[in-house]
This record gives sequence, structure tokens and C-alpha cells, in this order.
Amino acid sequence: MIHVVLVELKIPENVGFIARVMKNFGYEKLYLYKCNLTQDSFKTSANAKDLLEKAEILEDLYTFLSKFNLVVGTTGISGGDYRYFRKPMITPEELRNHIEGEVAILFGREDYGLFNEELEKCHLLVKIPTSDAYPVMNVSHAAAVILYALRDLKQEREERLATVGDLEVLISKVSNLLDLINFPERRKKREIVTLRRVLGRARMRDYEFESIMGIFTKTISYIKKLETEKKKSFQQ
Amino acid sequence: MIHVVLVELKIPENVGFIARVMKNFGYEKLYLYKCNLTQDSFKTSANAKDLLEKAEILEDLYTFLSKFNLVVGTTGISGGDYRYFRKPMITPEELRNHIEGEVAILFGREDYGLFNEELEKCHLLVKIPTSDAYPVMNVSHAAAVILYALRDLKQEREERLATVGDLEVLISKVSNLLDLINFPERRKKREIVTLRRVLGRARMRDYEFESIMGIFTKTISYIKKLETEKKKSFQQ
Repeated sequence: MIHVVLVELKIPENVGFIARVMKNFGYEKLYLYKCNLTQDSFKTSANAKDLLEKAEILEDLYTFLSKFNLVVGTTGISGGDYRYFRKPMITPEELRNHIEGEVAILFGREDYGLFNEELEKCHLLVKIPTSDAYPVMNVSHAAAVILYALRDLKQEREERLATVGDLEVLISKVSNLLDLINFPERRKKREIVTLRRVLGRARMRDYEFESIMGIFTKTISYIKKLETEKKKSFQQ
Repeated sequence: MIHVVLVELKIPENVGFIARVMKNFGYEKLYLYKCNLTQDSFKTSANAKDLLEKAEILEDLYTFLSKFNLVVGTTGISGGDYRYFRKPMITPEELRNHIEGEVAILFGREDYGLFNEELEKCHLLVKIPTSDAYPVMNVSHAAAVILYALRDLKQEREERLATVGDLEVLISKVSNLLDLINFPERRKKREIVTLRRVLGRARMRDYEFESIMGIFTKTISYIKKLETEKKKSFQQ
């Protein structure tokens, strides 16, 4: 099932246009995080007013995302200062192969898109292949293209997938391990983002998650035990 | 080369949105037939103001279309009273295989789309596969989807193709023939539309056009000669 998440859209008409295009292609789940929803949104939504009425308003984006199996970010920029956080990037058609379980697709601000801290949380980044001469699309037209590309995918629930929340537990476990082994701080963040992206798009099953968690839990216990023994032997 | 023709768009913002999405995907040729072009259009066009500035204003739609090799109509409706004039209908992806030479794509009025008399002149009709629950898209979002689907086609000129003007000469020749043989009037229009569609999407070469024209020209001459002889023999 695909869930459309709008992040800080300022122009009310865009919110309505996206609701309309969602309904045109049979999508139902709309979430608004700090968006401007006004009467103008209802006007541009035309016959999709019901989607706006039942749209869920989000208080905390990251808590909300933790229940999904996959989080997809959309971006119009392929380079910039934080290039690392903006790759790998795939096309809407390539994204089709990754849709399984509960998938959240984030569309960001009209001016700045998604912030880097939001892109970091995404497991996949999708970019519409636009002209170099003018790559910046209106967000509602970008949504039209992406939602069209994904329109006919089975919107089935796959219960056995690990959620983003599970994944983040695993990530923080790895983070603990890296601290424990004095992994260089400046490379740590990059490793974490890589791990999140790779595991996030791997469609881990519940039991696979448990299994991988086991590896790190045991590794950490073992290291801690060694440290304790070492400390004891020094004290003797 | 793809040319975008907007027909009687009333909402100025839509004209601007379409110019923007054209530039996003590298299209340049925009034509406006009885559209509302205002400062609001320039606002929604964002960085595609140049496309609006150099857009060609059409006085006569049909004369204009006669120079193209293929005319494509867009429609959101697949049934209705005049069902016959709305088929065959293809998807944006299927349309890719038909793009050759100079192609005009028509987008119609926000409320009524293209009229039947305009659809009759089209050789191919494209419909975006939308949800039955709410099939009616905003025209600028429909344009986004279709222009995205066709974005990476070589925009090469193929000089040897017969134009719409050529085709209409052929059609009127066939029409003459049908009159001559007392073809039932009520079926004639249907035959003409069918012929226009089939030959229109056949990508006829110049010499093929000449050759087919020859068949009808000679057939007509032959019938006329017979008629004349018959008349003469009666008079004797």
C-alpha cells in the first residue's frame, strides 16, 4: 500500500492538486505534515475533497514513519553539498520494483524540497528524469508523474516485513557497536546512512531482522565481556 | 518533433503550468488556440516564461494542423454518445511507438475537453489510464504524465512523411468516390473517420501517398468515363 506524505507545502493549491491526482490514480492515503490546507486546497482538489477531509495531520514525522516498511524520498536535485545523502537515486519506473508492504512516499517543500535530515531517513530516493535546462518541477506535477508510474501495482499488505521502527532499533544497535570499537566519528554518520539505505530497501523479513539483530547483540555482549575481563585483570 | 497545442483553455494558470512542465522535459513548441493567456499564466510557468513568450497564437486550428505528419488528441472520456469517434484509444506508453516526423498533441478545454469535430481530425487518441472512481484529471497534470512518457524520444525530423494536408487531399478524393458510387450518406462519415485514423497513423511516405492517390484518381476517372459513355449511349 502506498501512502503519500506531504512535507511543509506552503501553497494550498498544491495540496489540493495532489489529492486530485491521487484520486485519479486510485490512491487514498494522504498525510500532511505542516502543510497549508485551506479552502483553496479544496477548490483545486475538485472531486477529491474526501481525500483532503480524511487526510491525517502529522505531529511528528519520524515517529509516524517508523511504522512503514519503506520510506521513499523525492528530490529534484542530484548534486549539491550533501551529495552523499542524495544517492543512489532511481527513476519512477525503477521504484516500481521496490514497492512491497507499507510504503511512504514523501514530497517536500515547494522551494527547498526535503531537507537533508529528512532525506537521511529515506531508504530510496526517486528523481524524475528532467531536462538539465530546467529540472525544477511543480510538486503537484512531480506527484502526478510518480503516482502515474506506480498506479497499477498491487496494493497488498505484506505483514512479514520488518518496519522502519525495527530497522532503526537495528541501526542504533550498530551505532552502539561503532562507539564501542572507537569507530572514527566523522565516518560514522556516513556508515549509518549507508546501512539504513541498504537494509531499508532489502525488504527484510521479521525473522531476518531478528537474526541480524542477534549478530550485533551478541557481538556487543562479547566485546563488553572482554572489556570487563580486561578491566578485572588490570585490577588484580 | 512534438508540438503541444492547447485548445480553448480558460484557466490562465493551466497554460503556465503546461509551459513549465514542457520545459521540465525539454519540449519547446507551444501553440495556443483561443486560450486565456494572462499574467497568472506567467506566474505558474515559473522559469518557463520564454515558452509562453514565444508561443504561437493560432487563428485557424485546422489549417495549422495540415502541415503535421500526425495529430494526436487527448481525452479523459472513453464512452459517450459519439463513442465511435473516441476509438481506438491508446495509452501514453503505446503512443511512443507512433511518434515520427512532426507530431501535434492537442489538449482540450478544462470542462469539455476536445469537441467531437476536433477528435475526428485526430489520427490517434491517447487516454491516461485513470481510476474509474474519478477519471477526470486537471489538464496540466494530464500533460505532465503524457509529456513525461514521451520525453526521451528522438525529436528528429523525418522529411519524407506525408503531411496531414496530403492526407486530407486523399480523404476528399475518397469522399468524391463515395459520392460517385452513391455510398449511403449515414455510413460515409464513419468510413471517412476510420480512413483518416488508419492512414494517419500509418506514417505514410510521400511516394506511398502519391501511389494511393493514383489509385483513387484513376478509379474516379474510370467511373466518370463510364458514366459519360453510358449517358452518350442513352442519347443516341
